[in-house]
Amino acid sequence: MENTKKDMKNIVNHLKNSGFVFQSSEIYGGLSNTWDYGPLGISIINKIKRAWWKSFISLEINNVGLDSKILLNPKIWEASGHISNFSDPLIENKVNHKRYRADHIYEEITKKNSADINIRDLEHFMKNEVKEYDGSKTDWTEIKQFNLMFETFQGVVESNKQSIYLRPETAQGIFVNFNNIQRSLRLKLPFGVGQIGKSFRNEVTPGNFIFRTREFEQMELEFFTFPEQSLEDYNYYVNKSYQFIVSLGIKKESLKIRVHNEEELAHYSGATSDIEFLYPFGWGEIMGISHRGNYDLTSHNKYSNIKLQYLDPSNNNFMVPTVIEPSVGVDRLLLAILVDSYNVENIENSERIVLKIDKNLAPYKVAILPLVKKLSKESLEIYYKLIENDIDATFDETGSIGKRYRRQDSIGTYYSITFDYDSLDDKKITIRNRDTMEQERILISEIKEYIK
Amino acid sequence: MENTKKDMKNIVNHLKNSGFVFQSSEIYGGLSNTWDYGPLGISIINKIKRAWWKSFISLEINNVGLDSKILLNPKIWEASGHISNFSDPLIENKVNHKRYRADHIYEEITKKNSADINIRDLEHFMKNEVKEYDGSKTDWTEIKQFNLMFETFQGVVESNKQSIYLRPETAQGIFVNFNNIQRSLRLKLPFGVGQIGKSFRNEVTPGNFIFRTREFEQMELEFFTFPEQSLEDYNYYVNKSYQFIVSLGIKKESLKIRVHNEEELAHYSGATSDIEFLYPFGWGEIMGISHRGNYDLTSHNKYSNIKLQYLDPSNNNFMVPTVIEPSVGVDRLLLAILVDSYNVENIENSERIVLKIDKNLAPYKVAILPLVKKLSKESLEIYYKLIENDIDATFDETGSIGKRYRRQDSIGTYYSITFDYDSLDDKKITIRNRDTMEQERILISEIKEYIK
Repeated sequence: MENTKKDMKNIVNHLKNSGFVFQSSEIYGGLSNTWDYGPLGISIINKIKRAWWKSFISLEINNVGLDSKILLNPKIWEASGHISNFSDPLIENKVNHKRYRADHIYEEITKKNSADINIRDLEHFMKNEVKEYDGSKTDWTEIKQFNLMFETFQGVVESNKQSIYLRPETAQGIFVNFNNIQRSLRLKLPFGVGQIGKSFRNEVTPGNFIFRTREFEQMELEFFTFPEQSLEDYNYYVNKSYQFIVSLGIKKESLKIRVHNEEELAHYSGATSDIEFLYPFGWGEIMGISHRGNYDLTSHNKYSNIKLQYLDPSNNNFMVPTVIEPSVGVDRLLLAILVDSYNVENIENSERIVLKIDKNLAPYKVAILPLVKKLSKESLEIYYKLIENDIDATFDETGSIGKRYRRQDSIGTYYSITFDYDSLDDKKITIRNRDTMEQERILISEIKEYIK
Repeated sequence: MENTKKDMKNIVNHLKNSGFVFQSSEIYGGLSNTWDYGPLGISIINKIKRAWWKSFISLEINNVGLDSKILLNPKIWEASGHISNFSDPLIENKVNHKRYRADHIYEEITKKNSADINIRDLEHFMKNEVKEYDGSKTDWTEIKQFNLMFETFQGVVESNKQSIYLRPETAQGIFVNFNNIQRSLRLKLPFGVGQIGKSFRNEVTPGNFIFRTREFEQMELEFFTFPEQSLEDYNYYVNKSYQFIVSLGIKKESLKIRVHNEEELAHYSGATSDIEFLYPFGWGEIMGISHRGNYDLTSHNKYSNIKLQYLDPSNNNFMVPTVIEPSVGVDRLLLAILVDSYNVENIENSERIVLKIDKNLAPYKVAILPLVKKLSKESLEIYYKLIENDIDATFDETGSIGKRYRRQDSIGTYYSITFDYDSLDDKKITIRNRDTMEQERILISEIKEYIK
């Protein structure tokens, strides 16, 4: 089934009812566009993170990990430009007292990119061209820049409370640790530093389920390199990132690489490519690979008076490395995997909902199903054996086997193992494949090998 | 070496210089008592988290995982009591304009537990008994209760900004999802729900390195059970928690279980035990196991008007489960592992710093050391083979082999593999054990088996 023909509402309901994603704080009416991950959601997320870490850190001999804090010294956000520039252009219609993002309205109406227009012209456009909007006559206020960082206060003494921010990206925590990491591990350029962690943006218009939320999780790598080889490294990481997404089982026809044109690029960026996924609501970015030049390190050098730089052993000169940044949102990636694998099939005159998630990412690789409860003890032995071997398994002993197969299909479990009365004698079980629905009878002692 | 004889300053320096823990935001003068985890620190943390998840979620057939948000609907903190009660008693000395925690001063002077004294009596004590403190005469203000939650604001419209809090514990995110989890997975009591995530407390006196920080990470399980079997479950989890800590390689003589006496217990708690570790600065809690009764669910029932309850199939009655909570701080656990494993030995007339970290938690299980750079290509093949098999490895080709052994010892690498000229012919390498320093020559094809 094509993704654009899939209905987000059905998917969201299915994900809620089967334990993937819940509305956060639901019993208190929620918190706008906030979602918690249930047992099945976090199971996939844990595997996504491990796959990213293996691919971008462990298998890249020059790369290492980091875990910097969410609450950092606020001077970091001065240096990075987030305090002065990280904002959305908000405008209010005085007729209906609603607030909108002027840039979004501009893009909606003109089909042009809002990066091409400055605030003064944008305001002019709104007042002269948008006389009616959202079912109302308009009387626009001036545009107000709204900073997207969450602010909080640290410290005890009222007069001396320090205003700090929840990080809007994990990247800066890496940049400011450049010297610490390079020196303590004696790393040679080029090398990369990656981390996984929560970031926060006080988005004006969060939405599309878990696609755009105020609290989200990033997996970011900052790859430090020589300027002269940076384009090659950029291309390497564009290609690697695409291969990474494909390796998670996302169909190639659901993906495209979009190269930013010059007008779209951030002022510091030499080149950016997005890997986009076709969601039911349209194409959306899941991963961005950005050539950041040496903007960040240079800026921190200036603001901190500490030299974040590298002593090039080939010529004994200090230099400021160029940065390539592949960055991916965990929540968007999870949504892409769930949407891409969601299928409704008509089988034996009934509907089968099946999540065809990659075998290695499925919430459970195996379900153990004793034919009757009497056989639970022997079935449990198989269960614990699999868990001991780090194979995710679930145990389900309620309902008919047919019902249990359907239930496991609907949550993406790759194999179902049925333990029946014969199993007691012949030491064999029936193993069923989620996608082909074919069944085989194999020895219990061979399950581990069969699955791997 | 006994932990109390270890010097925190030496340990902190070693951890910084070798890439475990850095001062956060260091180039901007830091942010009080905030620390980032370097490549080696996060490598251990990832393994601690996986070990906890396997032990408390996967291997417990009744337990499942969750990932709730840091920013939740603020009504949750009303119901939990955090808005009204989660505060420290602060007092200011008007003579030197310094602020202190009155409860800490009381405990320091009387050697009694401050939980036994109410605020009015505490204030009376300060004014009448503490005429001099911290090298200054005193003139105390009244005690002010200081709430430990970080507050921030969500939303765009100035007049309509919502005051929200960074969660001070992960537990409440589990409680409010009780119905969602139980129903979507059709779980039968007793069952547990666990999660790993950051929490935030605006501590008045953070300190002792990563032991008490304002941003920290928790691994919490909320185990829902029948009241009549709750004491048994509590004892099970006290024992399991202790075994878990021991399984991470922490020496039994560095641990003790401390049972809270009645005066110490939170008003809702039936029983609490702490697992304490002997840090260089004294005994400190790393894990707490608390019998929370049904306080939290009952309170949310009242505040939300949603019934968080369980339909007992044995009698068809609704009941509110009792909760057992084993809770552990990742940062404190990491510090315990690092302190416990830190050793300085005198060998061959020189000092050997060695981190005797458990083989399965060490930042790297294996270091690959080509004798000379010429042999790097063949050595790298071994490296990638190990990584592919999810065995953490590092590659080090600079300095003499002796120096490299010492370097690996000092970061806890369990095995060092030296690839020399003979290896090209006999397909064997030398493998050295960190703790015994004994060396063996084995076939390259046997490395994987040898290590496992």
